[in-house]
Amino acid sequence: MSSDIIVNAPADFHVHLRQGSLCHIVTPCVRKGGFTLAYVMPNLKPPITTTDQALAYKALLESIDPHVDYLMTLYLAPELTPEEIRKAKRAGVVGVKSYPRGVTTNSDAGIENYEVYYPVFEAMEQEGLVLNLHGEVPSDADNNVCVLNAEERFLPQLVKLHKRFPALRIVLEHATTRAAVEVVKSLGDTVACTITAHHLALTVDDWAGQSFHFCKPVAKFPDDRKALQDVIRQGHPRFFLGSDSAPHPIASKLQSTPNHGCAAGVYTSPILLPLVAHLLESFGALERLEGFASSAGRQFYGRAAMASGPKVVLRRFKHIVEAADTVQSDEHQLLSFWVGRELNWVIAE
Amino acid sequence: MSSDIIVNAPADFHVHLRQGSLCHIVTPCVRKGGFTLAYVMPNLKPPITTTDQALAYKALLESIDPHVDYLMTLYLAPELTPEEIRKAKRAGVVGVKSYPRGVTTNSDAGIENYEVYYPVFEAMEQEGLVLNLHGEVPSDADNNVCVLNAEERFLPQLVKLHKRFPALRIVLEHATTRAAVEVVKSLGDTVACTITAHHLALTVDDWAGQSFHFCKPVAKFPDDRKALQDVIRQGHPRFFLGSDSAPHPIASKLQSTPNHGCAAGVYTSPILLPLVAHLLESFGALERLEGFASSAGRQFYGRAAMASGPKVVLRRFKHIVEAADTVQSDEHQLLSFWVGRELNWVIAE
Repeated sequence: MSSDIIVNAPADFHVHLRQGSLCHIVTPCVRKGGFTLAYVMPNLKPPITTTDQALAYKALLESIDPHVDYLMTLYLAPELTPEEIRKAKRAGVVGVKSYPRGVTTNSDAGIENYEVYYPVFEAMEQEGLVLNLHGEVPSDADNNVCVLNAEERFLPQLVKLHKRFPALRIVLEHATTRAAVEVVKSLGDTVACTITAHHLALTVDDWAGQSFHFCKPVAKFPDDRKALQDVIRQGHPRFFLGSDSAPHPIASKLQSTPNHGCAAGVYTSPILLPLVAHLLESFGALERLEGFASSAGRQFYGRAAMASGPKVVLRRFKHIVEAADTVQSDEHQLLSFWVGRELNWVIAE
Repeated sequence: MSSDIIVNAPADFHVHLRQGSLCHIVTPCVRKGGFTLAYVMPNLKPPITTTDQALAYKALLESIDPHVDYLMTLYLAPELTPEEIRKAKRAGVVGVKSYPRGVTTNSDAGIENYEVYYPVFEAMEQEGLVLNLHGEVPSDADNNVCVLNAEERFLPQLVKLHKRFPALRIVLEHATTRAAVEVVKSLGDTVACTITAHHLALTVDDWAGQSFHFCKPVAKFPDDRKALQDVIRQGHPRFFLGSDSAPHPIASKLQSTPNHGCAAGVYTSPILLPLVAHLLESFGALERLEGFASSAGRQFYGRAAMASGPKVVLRRFKHIVEAADTVQSDEHQLLSFWVGRELNWVIAE
């Protein structure tokens, strides 16, 4: 019996490749982690809100590693017009990402009310652009909203958008709750959902007092994690990998004062495919690896892999993930998720 | 109209005074924070499980600051016998603290099953010792238990103990949930509940990515915090202050690797009475200050303050809490809660 797995054209449908010198470090880690398609988030400073910015960013990424298919997105903001959507489509931009104001990294420009964007969504529906939702509402103590129920409280907005724009493809990004899984399952074929690797591993206990495991949305209850695992084990075609790999320099993860919290984000890119294989195997879903990490997302986005496309061979090999094996840089100290822990799989050279 | 408040004999019914050199730094902060009664937790290394240890610890504390009434406790553990309970009572020990195994600082010796301790509880009931419960069950992913519902899942054990030992005085320590408040209210007069200062201020959003606000039990939802505030505003006689002030050196709060979390604990002792006044005023309960921070707990423990007892004058004075004003030590770097933030009250010299 072979201990190798061949995965056809792994695709990460949610990744942060950053900007400046950090971008030069993390972009090569997409392929290092086994992936040749990266759906690129637009939350830079300033955010990517125009086609021209997106194309310039894509050119930068291609100059760093030309062997990855970068799917570009725009940041939903007031300057985004139906005309810009049509221009974006012609230029090959794939989606528009919506961030609620203030809930995650560089989301100060995020939205507060979707109705003002209905003309934009109508253009997206016509042009076939995908709407990517960071599905959390801002915390609001008077209404008992905090990071734990921010996703569940958002779900009615997802339902409302889908009803108003049934042909608009919508992706609920990085789902973390049973409630989200159930709502997405209940909606039509134009609504899909990404799941990160780390949310298959973590619960709230793992980020309580542990800043390297703190991200937005936060990992929830064990039963929520089980719902994410179950829907993958079931092979549901509208749930697929979006790593939300989000590198932050170590200094930003280790906050230093009582009034300044650490940056939110878990960095998985450098070990992503072995990690996903390891986790799926841990809950009996290894046979779903190619569906979850490639074909389901490609199908939803209309990016089917060619038979001659890139294949990645995973080999069964128990090893401890070392910091030095994940990412190295003199300028930025980064620490990958799972460093110091055991993985059962490596990418065969 | 005077801007002073006089508080008669403030009493902190749950405080960690540590051991070794740290003990010498934090013990004087009890009076610095306005308190002259300290109900002292026994979770040292090794834990305080005998009367002799408790007396030696009390002598140490009195050698550091003799002007505080230290009420001593034993750590519930297999070596604690009914005979030891009777000896403890004769020596002036006041209570026995129960820690579930592994849920907080130095709780490796914690209990897993209460029934084996029924003979001890019977002796405590006869002798009038108080049972202090850290009311959390250990995390258990298979049963969906994590730090968020660990307290609520514990409550049936509180109810069961109270029914079995109705004359045993029991304190549910550092309650953080509406569920806990409601259960304690529903039980008899022998069951009380401490509330910390920091749980009146924090919710889960405050410790998400913020290790200085991470403690056990973790702060919960905004609605839980409101329940704690409401029961104080109502002046309920069985809910009173136990700060759970828990100093940890800064290095222990700033965890440094992805697989090593930070120490759990919030340190409030040096600013405790001004902080409690500030917080109570913020939710319209300033008139409950003496009840909450002195007389209710003293009543429950049978430690009524004498008319000639110590009085503390709080003066209205807006100021920013400075690190240097809270605790100073060359050997241990500590950071008090609320450093860098504004308080409306100071202790008048």
